[in-house]
Amino acid sequence: MSAVPPPGLVVPDAWFVACATDELRGKPLARTIQGKPLVLFRGTKNVATALLDRCPHRNVPLSMGKVVGQQLECAYHGWKFDHSGACVTVPGLMEQDASLKSRCAEHYATRELDGFVWVYSTPNVEPKNEPFRFPHLNDAGYSTVRRQFVVEAGLHASIENTLDVPHTSFLHGGLFRTAEKKNVIDVVVRRHANHAEAEFIGEPAPRGLAGRILAPGGGVVQHFDRFFLPCIAQVEYRLGARSHLMTTTAFTPESDDFTRVYAVVTFKLPVPGWLVRPFVAPVATRIFAQDRVVLARQREQVKRFGGEKFTSTELDVLGPQVTLLLKHAANGTTPDAHEHRLQMRT
Amino acid sequence: MSAVPPPGLVVPDAWFVACATDELRGKPLARTIQGKPLVLFRGTKNVATALLDRCPHRNVPLSMGKVVGQQLECAYHGWKFDHSGACVTVPGLMEQDASLKSRCAEHYATRELDGFVWVYSTPNVEPKNEPFRFPHLNDAGYSTVRRQFVVEAGLHASIENTLDVPHTSFLHGGLFRTAEKKNVIDVVVRRHANHAEAEFIGEPAPRGLAGRILAPGGGVVQHFDRFFLPCIAQVEYRLGARSHLMTTTAFTPESDDFTRVYAVVTFKLPVPGWLVRPFVAPVATRIFAQDRVVLARQREQVKRFGGEKFTSTELDVLGPQVTLLLKHAANGTTPDAHEHRLQMRT
Amino acid sequence: MSAVPPPGLVVPDAWFVACATDELRGKPLARTIQGKPLVLFRGTKNVATALLDRCPHRNVPLSMGKVVGQQLECAYHGWKFDHSGACVTVPGLMEQDASLKSRCAEHYATRELDGFVWVYSTPNVEPKNEPFRFPHLNDAGYSTVRRQFVVEAGLHASIENTLDVPHTSFLHGGLFRTAEKKNVIDVVVRRHANHAEAEFIGEPAPRGLAGRILAPGGGVVQHFDRFFLPCIAQVEYRLGARSHLMTTTAFTPESDDFTRVYAVVTFKLPVPGWLVRPFVAPVATRIFAQDRVVLARQREQVKRFGGEKFTSTELDVLGPQVTLLLKHAANGTTPDAHEHRLQMRT
Repeated sequence: MSAVPPPGLVVPDAWFVACATDELRGKPLARTIQGKPLVLFRGTKNVATALLDRCPHRNVPLSMGKVVGQQLECAYHGWKFDHSGACVTVPGLMEQDASLKSRCAEHYATRELDGFVWVYSTPNVEPKNEPFRFPHLNDAGYSTVRRQFVVEAGLHASIENTLDVPHTSFLHGGLFRTAEKKNVIDVVVRRHANHAEAEFIGEPAPRGLAGRILAPGGGVVQHFDRFFLPCIAQVEYRLGARSHLMTTTAFTPESDDFTRVYAVVTFKLPVPGWLVRPFVAPVATRIFAQDRVVLARQREQVKRFGGEKFTSTELDVLGPQVTLLLKHAANGTTPDAHEHRLQMRT
Repeated sequence: MSAVPPPGLVVPDAWFVACATDELRGKPLARTIQGKPLVLFRGTKNVATALLDRCPHRNVPLSMGKVVGQQLECAYHGWKFDHSGACVTVPGLMEQDASLKSRCAEHYATRELDGFVWVYSTPNVEPKNEPFRFPHLNDAGYSTVRRQFVVEAGLHASIENTLDVPHTSFLHGGLFRTAEKKNVIDVVVRRHANHAEAEFIGEPAPRGLAGRILAPGGGVVQHFDRFFLPCIAQVEYRLGARSHLMTTTAFTPESDDFTRVYAVVTFKLPVPGWLVRPFVAPVATRIFAQDRVVLARQREQVKRFGGEKFTSTELDVLGPQVTLLLKHAANGTTPDAHEHRLQMRT
Repeated sequence: MSAVPPPGLVVPDAWFVACATDELRGKPLARTIQGKPLVLFRGTKNVATALLDRCPHRNVPLSMGKVVGQQLECAYHGWKFDHSGACVTVPGLMEQDASLKSRCAEHYATRELDGFVWVYSTPNVEPKNEPFRFPHLNDAGYSTVRRQFVVEAGLHASIENTLDVPHTSFLHGGLFRTAEKKNVIDVVVRRHANHAEAEFIGEPAPRGLAGRILAPGGGVVQHFDRFFLPCIAQVEYRLGARSHLMTTTAFTPESDDFTRVYAVVTFKLPVPGWLVRPFVAPVATRIFAQDRVVLARQREQVKRFGGEKFTSTELDVLGPQVTLLLKHAANGTTPDAHEHRLQMRT
C-alpha cells in the first residue's frame, strides 16, 4: 500500500461511507477517508468501530492485527484497543493504565444504516448531524442494485461527472442520449444551504436501451439531479406513477486522487424487478467504466498541468454548485440560496 | 501516461520535430515538447495542426478524442476545435461563439518538411524563423535511413553524446574506433551565433566495420561535427568525392528526463545504396542502444546527486558549446563568435 | 536503480559494512551507505577500494565500468582510477595529470575484517577509529551461520526491532516466547559513551523450538541485548558453561527507507554444531521474514503520516537508547552514562 496524500479540500463534521455492512466481519478493515487511514472492526456488542489506523506505540497499521474478544490487537507488540480507542492492555507491562491519552488510538464516530458503515470525519467528538438516508430501499415495489468501485479522481470531479447531462451523448454515445440535439428543454437550478438541485422540464423520454426499459410508451419525463453535502449525488427519473428510477451514489474521497464510489440504483417499473435487474447491472457497469477512464485522464491532466483550469458554460449545471457547496463546507460556512433558469438542446 | 515535468531549460521561438509525417494520419497524436503536452491532427486541407493537449472545458486530453470533418472533437462533451484552436461547437449550447478566447485551445505553428512535422515552441504567435532543412535527402546518388527512438536523457546530454568523439572507442569499442590511441589529430572548434562546429584534421579512416564500408581504400578523411540551435546534431564524413556520410539528428526534449530522437543517415558510397543499407541499420541500432543505456544511467545519476557535476577536458570539444548555445537561446541572447584549436590522440 | 534519498540522520567518522568479502571479486560492486552511492573494487594488491560511484567527467556510475589492471575504468570514456581515486588516464588527452583534484573520485577508507569489507563514512580522511570486531568467529567449539538481507526500514527502527523483547511473543508467537505472561523478570539498562546494554535477570529458559535447542535441561539463562555505535545489535544468551548463543548483526543504512542487514549467528551448544546448523537457518529465516514485513509497514506508515509519532513505555528497553546514541553520534557529541532498572512480565 502506498502513501495516500491528503486531499486539497477536507470537509469536517461530515459523514462518509467507510464500507458496506457486509464488508465488516471478523477481520479489521483498512479504509482511507479524506487522507486519514482508518481501521474498522466490530467492537463491544458488534458495533462498527473506527480508529486511526496507526498504533500509538510504534506506528504500525492496526489493520495488520486481529480482533480478539471484540478488541483490536496490534500485530507487533500485542497492544489491545477497545471500541473507544482506549489501550486496555500493554502485554508485559507491570502497571496497565487504559486512561492514558498517549496510548489511545484516535476514535471516529460511526453509524450503521441502509447497509453501509458511515464514519464521521472529525475524530474524538460527538457528531453534530446524522448521515444521509438512502430512499425507497424497503418500499413496496422497488428493486435495488448496488455497486462499489474506485475512481482515480477527486471528490468534486467525480460528483460533477455523475450529475452532468451533456457528456452522456458523447462519452456514453448510443447507450442513452444521441449526439443529434433536436429538442430544447428548460432547466431550473436551485441551490440551498446543504444541497443543490437541477430540474429538467420538457425532457423527452430517453432513447436507446435505458429509455426502452424506463418508459416503453415514451412521453415527457420528470428528471431531477441533486447533490447533498458532502458526498451524495442523486439522479431521479419519473414517468407517470408507474416508472421511478433513482440512482443515489455516495462518494468517499480517499485522497485527491482516489474516490471510492457506492452506487445504489433503486427502481420501480411497469415490468417486474426480476426481469429488469439483469439489464440494469451491465448497463451501469459499462457507463461506470467509461466514466472511470475519462475521470482518471482528467485527474492526470490536472496533476500534469499543476492544477485545474476549467472553462464553464451554462450547460455545466451542477458542477460549479457542487464545488461552491464543498468549499463552503470545508470552511464551515453556508452559501446564500440561489435559483436560475436556462435552456439546453438535448 | 504519467506526469512529465517541464525541462529545466526551455527554448522559446524555436522549431522542434513533433513527429514524422507518416505518423500523423486520421487519429489525433499526443506528443510532448519541452514539457508541453500537445495534440497533433490534420485540420482543414489536411494541414498538420498542433494544439495544447487539454480541453479548455474540463481539461481532459484532446488526444483522447477523434477527428471529425477536419476538426478535433473532445471525447468527454464533444467540444469541437478547428485548425486554429477555436472552439466551433459546444454541443447542447443555445448560442455558439467560436470567438471566445476562454474556449480556445492554445495553438502552435507547424511546418511539414523533409518528412517531419515541426512545431514552433511559442504558442499563438507568428514564427520568427523557419525549421532546419535536412541535407541531400533528394540528391542523386544518396540513400537515406531513418530511425526514431526515445532516450531517457535531457537535450544537452543527448546532443553532447551524439557529437562526442572520445567515447566511441570505449562505449562502442570494436564497432569503429579502437582503444589504442596511436594517431594525433588536430581539431578546430568554431562557435557562431546559432551553431557550433568541430573540424577534425588528419584523421585516419575509421577502422572496423564502419571503416570498411565507408572507405575501403583507407586514407585521410574529412570529418565535421556540428550543432545547430536548438536541436540538430550533425556528423559528416567525406572520403574524396565518392564517399559521403551525414548523420543528421533532430532531438525533441519532452522533459529533462526524456528526449525523442529522429536520426537521418544520408550517404553516398562507392558501393550501391541497396548493398549498404542492410548493414547501416543494424550498426546504427547497436550504437544507439549502447548510447541509450549510458545516457539513462547518466540522467539517473544526475537526479540522484541532485544535479550535474561535470569536469571537462579539452577533449570535450562540442559539449560545452552546445550547453552555452542552449543557455543563450533560452535567455534570448547570442554568444560571441569563438575559435580554438587542440590536439587529440585517436 | 532508482534514486536513493539520503537518510535523515547521517553518522560521520563511522564504519559500516559495505559487503561481504566474497561478494567483492573481479567486477566493480555498487553499494549505497547513508545515501552515498559507492563503487567497490579490488585495487593495487587486491585491496578493497571504495570510491564515490560517479565519474567526475560526465557523472555516469563507475560501477558500470570494469576493473583493468587493478584500476577502475569508466564505461563511457575510459577514464581510469587507482586505489586512491586519482584519475591516472584520460584516453586521448595529450597531457595526463593524475594529481588534478577535479578529476579525482571521492575516496573512502576501507578495512577487510571478519569476512566483511567495512567502509568509513567520511571521505578523503584518515579514520579516527577502527571497525567493530565480531566475537568468537574462530573460537574452538563455536559454529557460525551468516545471512544477508535488506529491510525496508531506517537504521534505528531496524536495530530497535532486533533488540526488542516484547514483540517476540506476538510477531513471532509460537516460535519462542508465548503470549501468556506468567514470569516477572528484572532488567538493568546501562548506557555508555558508545554503546548501551540491557541485562535480563531471572529469565526462564526460552520455550518452544529455540528453547529446546539452547537449553534442553531448562533453568535460568543469562541474557544480554547490546547496541554498539553506529550499527551493531547483539543478542547474547548463556545457559551455564555449555550453551552460548550470540547473534551479532551489522546494519548498513542505505537510506531512510532501506537498510542492509548482515546477521552473524555464533553458537556453542551441548549438541554438535553440524546437528544444530540445519535448524538454526530456517528458524532465523522465518523470524527475519516476519520482522521484515512489520518493519516495511512501519516505515510506510511513518512516511504516510509525515513522521514518527511513537509512544514508549518502560518495556521499550533499548530502542530509545539506540535513538539517543545515534543522534549524539550524528552531532559528534557523547551522552552521559546512565543506568536504570525495571521489571517486565515475560
